[in-house]
Amino acid sequence: MGVMIIVMGLPGAGKTTVLNGAVSGFADWKVLNYGDMMFEIAKREKIVNERDEMRKLPLKSQKRIQDEAAKKLSEIQGKVILDTHCSIQTATGYMPGLPFDQLRKLKVDYLVFITAPAKDILGRRQRDTTRKRDVVSIEDVERDISVNISYLCTYSVLSGAAASIITNADGKLDDAVGRLKEVIKKAGEA
Amino acid sequence: MGVMIIVMGLPGAGKTTVLNGAVSGFADWKVLNYGDMMFEIAKREKIVNERDEMRKLPLKSQKRIQDEAAKKLSEIQGKVILDTHCSIQTATGYMPGLPFDQLRKLKVDYLVFITAPAKDILGRRQRDTTRKRDVVSIEDVERDISVNISYLCTYSVLSGAAASIITNADGKLDDAVGRLKEVIKKAGEA
Amino acid sequence: MGVMIIVMGLPGAGKTTVLNGAVSGFADWKVLNYGDMMFEIAKREKIVNERDEMRKLPLKSQKRIQDEAAKKLSEIQGKVILDTHCSIQTATGYMPGLPFDQLRKLKVDYLVFITAPAKDILGRRQRDTTRKRDVVSIEDVERDISVNISYLCTYSVLSGAAASIITNADGKLDDAVGRLKEVIKKAGEA
Repeated sequence: MGVMIIVMGLPGAGKTTVLNGAVSGFADWKVLNYGDMMFEIAKREKIVNERDEMRKLPLKSQKRIQDEAAKKLSEIQGKVILDTHCSIQTATGYMPGLPFDQLRKLKVDYLVFITAPAKDILGRRQRDTTRKRDVVSIEDVERDISVNISYLCTYSVLSGAAASIITNADGKLDDAVGRLKEVIKKAGEA
Repeated sequence: MGVMIIVMGLPGAGKTTVLNGAVSGFADWKVLNYGDMMFEIAKREKIVNERDEMRKLPLKSQKRIQDEAAKKLSEIQGKVILDTHCSIQTATGYMPGLPFDQLRKLKVDYLVFITAPAKDILGRRQRDTTRKRDVVSIEDVERDISVNISYLCTYSVLSGAAASIITNADGKLDDAVGRLKEVIKKAGEA
Repeated sequence: MGVMIIVMGLPGAGKTTVLNGAVSGFADWKVLNYGDMMFEIAKREKIVNERDEMRKLPLKSQKRIQDEAAKKLSEIQGKVILDTHCSIQTATGYMPGLPFDQLRKLKVDYLVFITAPAKDILGRRQRDTTRKRDVVSIEDVERDISVNISYLCTYSVLSGAAASIITNADGKLDDAVGRLKEVIKKAGEA
């Protein structure tokens, strides 16, 4: 029997920074990235060579690989933090990061959504020149946040897991890291 | 194996106009209306004569008919756009347009929610004198939009389908039509 | 075959006042409190003596007791109003009040969420000195409301039940009571 925390966040919310800051003190937790796991599966099957090819796979292949990653995850023992997306925004809509068919395969204890005030997210995306990101307005970011929180609540009802919303506002990284540490600590006690 | 896009929208969002504008170029897609399908079933069973009698049927009959329509839909081959409600607002609350028991019978590829800025929706409803609509405030419309987006996200998680939110703002019909065309094109390629 | 209305609300929304005001005229409806039912089960099993010990039980025991209460509820005949939480806010996140595993055991007809304008909720919480409540901002309360409405919509899709959002604004208690009476009346007719 394991313990699983799923950590999600919008682009620009600072998920990776908060996650790295929080897990450093917990040696017994393993951090797994859902996308990495899918890439490993696809590479082993020799259907892709580069990470970037993943998104070009037919939807059917992507779903099958996602299913296999979920199955693999469900068999992992111990304390796991799964790093993944709440939803993936594409040109034709939001794809659920944890569709029911996959979520039902997992035993989830905590769902964490890292977010930030819309204006902070917008500013971070504008300053980040390393990634090609679409130009969006503050209203778009606000819509994104509320859509993702709706996804989060659905995951919470379906899995029975607690849903934690952690705000990583500009200049308040320590607060966000502290809140994620609390969740990890609590999950480890259960 | 078919492809299914479900198109939904609030009263006053302009769903029908956007849908008609978008599908005209796609001859291989069939547009079905969930309400029409239910009416056809009830008429064949001789339990109603007029469309208006549908809403007066006992809730149990309505649910049975909805189930039959879902079953019928699940058997349709080819490329289908299902025109239906995200939720139906009644005096005693929102009824889910796609309750889980019916949604699970369908293989959905894309969920599209046509919306508009709250002030545009309010203005359109006020100018539309052909339908008897309740007087509502801008806050009511905003609440309606966010409630319907929550329904949309739940449908997305349960079905695994992408959720597309298309804004049909006053004077921007072409943008909305163009975005729906993109979804139809993408769905047709899959 | 029974009828079930589930009434939920945020702390400070005035759920108890609205519920008491509405049910007084309906002698054939039984009001049950989910938390009370769970406490009764735990007391009979001699694992707690006081209500306050409930929240200190291991999560696994809490879930088992919640499951038993759901099973018991599913066997109750007649007209039932279930008084419970939409979500329970803890230091480490929102716990779903009706996780899918329990909700699927119930046949729910109406879901009612009692809410109020964020500023009214905040004011009531500040004036309520009998309960120790965390200090929160108006943004926190707005977030709480929207998170709980997301939970509500998910419950609605999963159960197929109508979702009613009743606003109990300061000085408008009679309106809120009247709206809940309408739901109870309608549910009783079905």
